Amino acid sequence: MDRSRLLRRLQAVRAHSLALAQPLSAEDCALQSMPDASPVKWHLGHTSWFFETLVLSPHCAGYRAFDARFAYLFNSYYEALGPRHPRPQRGLLSRPALAEVLDYRRHVDAALQEFVEAGAEEAFNAAAALIELGLQHEQQHQELIVTDVKHLLSLNPLQPAYLAPEAAPAAAAAAEAPPLRWLDFEGGLAEIGHAGTGFAFDNEGPRHRVWLEPYRLANRPVSCGEFLDFIADGGYRRPELWLSDGWAWVQAGGVAAPAYWHPQDGLLFTLRGPRPLDRAEPACHLNLYEAAAYAQWAGARLPTEAEWEAAAQAQPAAAAPAGKSLAEHLHPRPAADGPGLLQLDDAVWQWTRSGYEPYPGFQPLAGAVGEYNGKFMVGQNVLRGGSCASPAGHVRPSYRNFFPAAARWQFTGVRLARDAP
Amino acid sequence: MDRSRLLRRLQAVRAHSLALAQPLSAEDCALQSMPDASPVKWHLGHTSWFFETLVLSPHCAGYRAFDARFAYLFNSYYEALGPRHPRPQRGLLSRPALAEVLDYRRHVDAALQEFVEAGAEEAFNAAAALIELGLQHEQQHQELIVTDVKHLLSLNPLQPAYLAPEAAPAAAAAAEAPPLRWLDFEGGLAEIGHAGTGFAFDNEGPRHRVWLEPYRLANRPVSCGEFLDFIADGGYRRPELWLSDGWAWVQAGGVAAPAYWHPQDGLLFTLRGPRPLDRAEPACHLNLYEAAAYAQWAGARLPTEAEWEAAAQAQPAAAAPAGKSLAEHLHPRPAADGPGLLQLDDAVWQWTRSGYEPYPGFQPLAGAVGEYNGKFMVGQNVLRGGSCASPAGHVRPSYRNFFPAAARWQFTGVRLARDAP
Amino acid sequence: MDRSRLLRRLQAVRAHSLALAQPLSAEDCALQSMPDASPVKWHLGHTSWFFETLVLSPHCAGYRAFDARFAYLFNSYYEALGPRHPRPQRGLLSRPALAEVLDYRRHVDAALQEFVEAGAEEAFNAAAALIELGLQHEQQHQELIVTDVKHLLSLNPLQPAYLAPEAAPAAAAAAEAPPLRWLDFEGGLAEIGHAGTGFAFDNEGPRHRVWLEPYRLANRPVSCGEFLDFIADGGYRRPELWLSDGWAWVQAGGVAAPAYWHPQDGLLFTLRGPRPLDRAEPACHLNLYEAAAYAQWAGARLPTEAEWEAAAQAQPAAAAPAGKSLAEHLHPRPAADGPGLLQLDDAVWQWTRSGYEPYPGFQPLAGAVGEYNGKFMVGQNVLRGGSCASPAGHVRPSYRNFFPAAARWQFTGVRLARDAP
Amino acid sequence: MDRSRLLRRLQAVRAHSLALAQPLSAEDCALQSMPDASPVKWHLGHTSWFFETLVLSPHCAGYRAFDARFAYLFNSYYEALGPRHPRPQRGLLSRPALAEVLDYRRHVDAALQEFVEAGAEEAFNAAAALIELGLQHEQQHQELIVTDVKHLLSLNPLQPAYLAPEAAPAAAAAAEAPPLRWLDFEGGLAEIGHAGTGFAFDNEGPRHRVWLEPYRLANRPVSCGEFLDFIADGGYRRPELWLSDGWAWVQAGGVAAPAYWHPQDGLLFTLRGPRPLDRAEPACHLNLYEAAAYAQWAGARLPTEAEWEAAAQAQPAAAAPAGKSLAEHLHPRPAADGPGLLQLDDAVWQWTRSGYEPYPGFQPLAGAVGEYNGKFMVGQNVLRGGSCASPAGHVRPSYRNFFPAAARWQFTGVRLARDAP
Repeated sequence: MDRSRLLRRLQAVRAHSLALAQPLSAEDCALQSMPDASPVKWHLGHTSWFFETLVLSPHCAGYRAFDARFAYLFNSYYEALGPRHPRPQRGLLSRPALAEVLDYRRHVDAALQEFVEAGAEEAFNAAAALIELGLQHEQQHQELIVTDVKHLLSLNPLQPAYLAPEAAPAAAAAAEAPPLRWLDFEGGLAEIGHAGTGFAFDNEGPRHRVWLEPYRLANRPVSCGEFLDFIADGGYRRPELWLSDGWAWVQAGGVAAPAYWHPQDGLLFTLRGPRPLDRAEPACHLNLYEAAAYAQWAGARLPTEAEWEAAAQAQPAAAAPAGKSLAEHLHPRPAADGPGLLQLDDAVWQWTRSGYEPYPGFQPLAGAVGEYNGKFMVGQNVLRGGSCASPAGHVRPSYRNFFPAAARWQFTGVRLARDAP
Repeated sequence: MDRSRLLRRLQAVRAHSLALAQPLSAEDCALQSMPDASPVKWHLGHTSWFFETLVLSPHCAGYRAFDARFAYLFNSYYEALGPRHPRPQRGLLSRPALAEVLDYRRHVDAALQEFVEAGAEEAFNAAAALIELGLQHEQQHQELIVTDVKHLLSLNPLQPAYLAPEAAPAAAAAAEAPPLRWLDFEGGLAEIGHAGTGFAFDNEGPRHRVWLEPYRLANRPVSCGEFLDFIADGGYRRPELWLSDGWAWVQAGGVAAPAYWHPQDGLLFTLRGPRPLDRAEPACHLNLYEAAAYAQWAGARLPTEAEWEAAAQAQPAAAAPAGKSLAEHLHPRPAADGPGLLQLDDAVWQWTRSGYEPYPGFQPLAGAVGEYNGKFMVGQNVLRGGSCASPAGHVRPSYRNFFPAAARWQFTGVRLARDAP
Repeated sequence: MDRSRLLRRLQAVRAHSLALAQPLSAEDCALQSMPDASPVKWHLGHTSWFFETLVLSPHCAGYRAFDARFAYLFNSYYEALGPRHPRPQRGLLSRPALAEVLDYRRHVDAALQEFVEAGAEEAFNAAAALIELGLQHEQQHQELIVTDVKHLLSLNPLQPAYLAPEAAPAAAAAAEAPPLRWLDFEGGLAEIGHAGTGFAFDNEGPRHRVWLEPYRLANRPVSCGEFLDFIADGGYRRPELWLSDGWAWVQAGGVAAPAYWHPQDGLLFTLRGPRPLDRAEPACHLNLYEAAAYAQWAGARLPTEAEWEAAAQAQPAAAAPAGKSLAEHLHPRPAADGPGLLQLDDAVWQWTRSGYEPYPGFQPLAGAVGEYNGKFMVGQNVLRGGSCASPAGHVRPSYRNFFPAAARWQFTGVRLARDAP
Repeated sequence: MDRSRLLRRLQAVRAHSLALAQPLSAEDCALQSMPDASPVKWHLGHTSWFFETLVLSPHCAGYRAFDARFAYLFNSYYEALGPRHPRPQRGLLSRPALAEVLDYRRHVDAALQEFVEAGAEEAFNAAAALIELGLQHEQQHQELIVTDVKHLLSLNPLQPAYLAPEAAPAAAAAAEAPPLRWLDFEGGLAEIGHAGTGFAFDNEGPRHRVWLEPYRLANRPVSCGEFLDFIADGGYRRPELWLSDGWAWVQAGGVAAPAYWHPQDGLLFTLRGPRPLDRAEPACHLNLYEAAAYAQWAGARLPTEAEWEAAAQAQPAAAAPAGKSLAEHLHPRPAADGPGLLQLDDAVWQWTRSGYEPYPGFQPLAGAVGEYNGKFMVGQNVLRGGSCASPAGHVRPSYRNFFPAAARWQFTGVRLARDAP
């Protein structure tokens, strides 16, 4: 791997995390809104811990850990790396202060930079792939920073904004999303899973064959306008539309709209504060139950992950996006019409009906990073694509995201599928 | 469908439920040991309610419901059929008395018998498939009766037996299960799902193609002796062997052995009361987490449901078992050695790594029975095969059983799989 | 103590427990409706265990325990007497069967009878007080049998009756309770606590002085009609009437009426099944929060236990009631008008504002029975009087009953108090 | 009331709250360690809200609320003052920032100062008692700030200190507390409750007579050394020493020592960080269950609140303490020997066996402040005295503090009592 290219990438990714935290106060960064979310400060520390523990300590001669106690505080879930602070208590840590965590980042960054620039050849070669893994890992946490901040701010009665509202657009936006069109795929023997030499997580491989029956996919995700029609048609009150667990979830919580929607006043809580719901934008913050109920109502179904990936492979690649600016990490935009599959990876993650399972021949990475993906392969569903909150360049068609069926705080929506007619 | 054959089958299946309840008192039949289990009395009522509601009331002219209030009490989960008594409160129903529920059964049986024998042709033809569904449904509850009674009795400090202990065997049993052998399957394009004209549940179809990489399956389920070796090797104390949710489950409950095992005194609680554990018998009452951890420890993995079914199809059919006597519904027997896949469906259900999802082209049945399977297709794992507690003739290679990953009160074990070497 | 009198009393009390169970099936007797309640079968066993463990085993030479395992099953809360079956799991015991528990009772009764009739003088003298304690203890459980059965049956959608409805009364009942009158008490230095040589529980002594400011008590408990007026006046929706914990309890449960009331249809669930609410009968199944909120609404307060007892001492004793028949254990009757304090102990227990604390100089009994009362003296409130469900002759003015503030399944109501004007 | 004296007091009390927060960062001030505790920022806001809502808005013409939304955020439990942010979610408020809350304080302080100095006579007279109540209220929250910070920091694996450790004392401290001596009180008719014209909370009155049997009180609170002896004697493993609820609490939590004690390494977590336990210092952070179990073990009992107050009245008043410096709010000091009752109110609050109930003739204050005390009068126990964390001059012998029996995060200990021999 080219050292100077890796160095530039390292600097860019690490800087982006700081940029995400920049609009936030130390108080904002310390709080934890629920056990599933983490304080921003913890994300900033944990992503540094990852480099310190997996790259610097084992591979960089003479590296001294910033603070030995951080090994306990910032381990997320690696059993092989020792005991750790319980996840639901991450929000009880007023110390280390944010300033100290930023010092920690600088300490790690300086050591990483020196290592990438001037580390011994053998050590660098042994560690380069782990550095890349660390960067990909940090990008995943960048998306979590955005989603976790949104969740925290949404619970504040003051309904504070992460960023200031957008200036009003010059031209009127379309009232509705572009027409929903069905694209046909003939199925047959397909190959899915990561191919080529670029980075991929272990759970994306090995590439392997799957047999697909002919199917159709919608050209774009379901829009807010369409989802409002579902609500207006009694969608949340009709058990026949729901999976059994989903109906129990609706009943237990008295749920009547996706997360962050306030249909009674037509408002949507966003990272720019509350604003009127836009029928044209993709429906977002749906969980699997809502996605599946909507599909049932629409006479459709969720795609499988293999259907999604096989179709996405056939899609001409979008021009590689220039690095997203911070201001783009806020809400899925209405789709611009066009041919093919729209908004594959830049609006909302798309629920599949596929349980998150290992591919045939799956082997976790060796060592502690073997815990990265494999041990979560039960009881969750695969999400495909990417979202407005995904860092630029992070995702690809073989990317497998996964969450529990009831989770709603990610930028998750639904692209419909059908059997071929 | 032949009326007289259906009638004989109806009588046999309905009688078997009563035979299962026969060793139990009214008190035994009234209690509910946990929200997931139901009282035997409820099972006896619910299976009658199924016939009354889905066969007799809509199709049998002049049928009068035994008690209108039973529609509420004995509905399990059919939203289309109105409100229902909450599942966790089934154990609060001392009334109707067991005797009254047995009257209910007789009332339903008499009406069904008359309908099958002498119902108008059109009505009979419309209802015959539902009657068969009702019988298959009742057989599923027969297995639940056995597992739920076992769970209830196990919680009683008196450790009561459902049936008297077996007479000591004349000849000494083998100390260990037959040698574990790996059978190779070449994979490729296979067809799975129900074929032919016999009964199958909707979730077994449609038959469809899948692509399989070459794989191996163990000739028999893991034995208690093998599982004891896992325990002795620290299996329950080594996080690297476990799925993440599984390790959390072990930690939260201080789990150290499968359900009903008491390794400290070498005893196993069975339906014949406590007795010494037999190293040769299949390990039973494992949940998915334990099954997967054992497989990891053994350098293997769980099969997918497609691997399992493709292999089972290739297996020469066992001679159709003569109806199992009651006394056989008690515990999985040690395997008798032989060629091929042993104990496919008569010892323990076998966990697969496959999430319970719809097959391509899956369509639920029309009407209320459409809720039978489809709405549960999320968050559970598929079990394949059958168990010692499955009624004779009930299962087939395409059969898809499913339970949550943490469930242990079914007769569940593990057959190992590996990628082809 | 006179042996023959004790024997007659023993036979009468023990027979009354059986009479209470007589209208119930074995199924009715096996179920447990909530952790706070116990199955009737357990009450029948536990009261026998009390005699076996505290009287027969230590004092009756040659006594053989009926079943050694019952020591574990039927111990309620005596730490000094070894481990015990967890209270919330009493409803999981289908074995021993009711018939076996009745055998247990006969075994214990026979041994007790022989001991009382012919036990050695020294042993009898040592045990006589414990036998009396056992009888008083059994009478307490007789009231619990009634309240626990009522709770269980109330949860059954069939709304079954313990006894058949009463024949319609010949003459029309009064539409309202007798007028509420205030009786004045001048306070000063009073003595409360048990006096004399009759039986009393340890928590009723020692008799001691208390200083009371002048106060007033209502001549009768609050009636259902009065409580309906409170409800109609928004009683359950006005936080200013409630203790803080009480308001939280109302909010959390959406409470809008006392237990067993169905104000929407004017029905009351009783041990004779549902029937129209009678404005004249005492309001029953109130918890402390409801009692205190009602008092606040009525411009009054709850009495202290010392006020209650000092007033009750001044009351001319009612003619000792002849033994209540079973049929009287059902619901508090409307008060018959008259002078003085009406329905002191035969309608509803009366909540006091007094926390349940030891009296000055309180000493628990020696030995295991020292756990009878003392260890519960925190976090509960004292109830005074007695109820329609209290066995005849069981209570007295110094009697101290106690329950947590939120409990409603006892026959509990409220007698208002005020400071002297 | 003298305006200038009130003004000085206002300034001193308000300044003390800020002094308490001074060693803390904004992050420290934002976190909530448990539902029972509040963030320091919330305490600072709430105490200002109290003045704004109850003094300035109703009495100070022209006062403008700092931010109308704070009425919702900073209401604690006053139903009469409208809806409020749920207590368990106080730790989710990163906004308003600490700096903004400090602005809020300055805004309120300025308005209060002007009002006290120059408010119209009538308005001032109407509000003066509420200002004093607000100051007493703020002092109560000052103690909570200390206890809540201690709880929060204790949960941090870094075990951070609120203040730096003390310099080592010049002279060796005593190894043990002064000898425990029993002081005798003859009881009889006593008067308790607040007397005189100084400030008192409504729950301290009216003054009234009580009858006391002769009793004894220990001259000082139980020491850590004595409590260690209790632990060493199996105190936490002997059910006979515990109240029933207390034993359940011990069992459920595996409790083996008071809060903040780490007997395995002899360390105590304090506001100056962990340090060795000192046998001479008062045992602190006991709940009622631990206090009562210790008393039982020591052949003693808890005092009643009347016994405590009657004895305290007889005690010659200590010289009024000069204002405590911040550094004293940290941990109870070992008692200095001397005559009479030592450490009545400057070391640890002392549990009584008295349930928190209204005094005879109790009347809550009129208006919203009537919710201050009265609505909590059920299910808690009275604590008497005062603690090292109580602000100087805040307590008096009639002061009634109260907490649930299981609470341990206050500075609570035990002074033993006995019946007169």
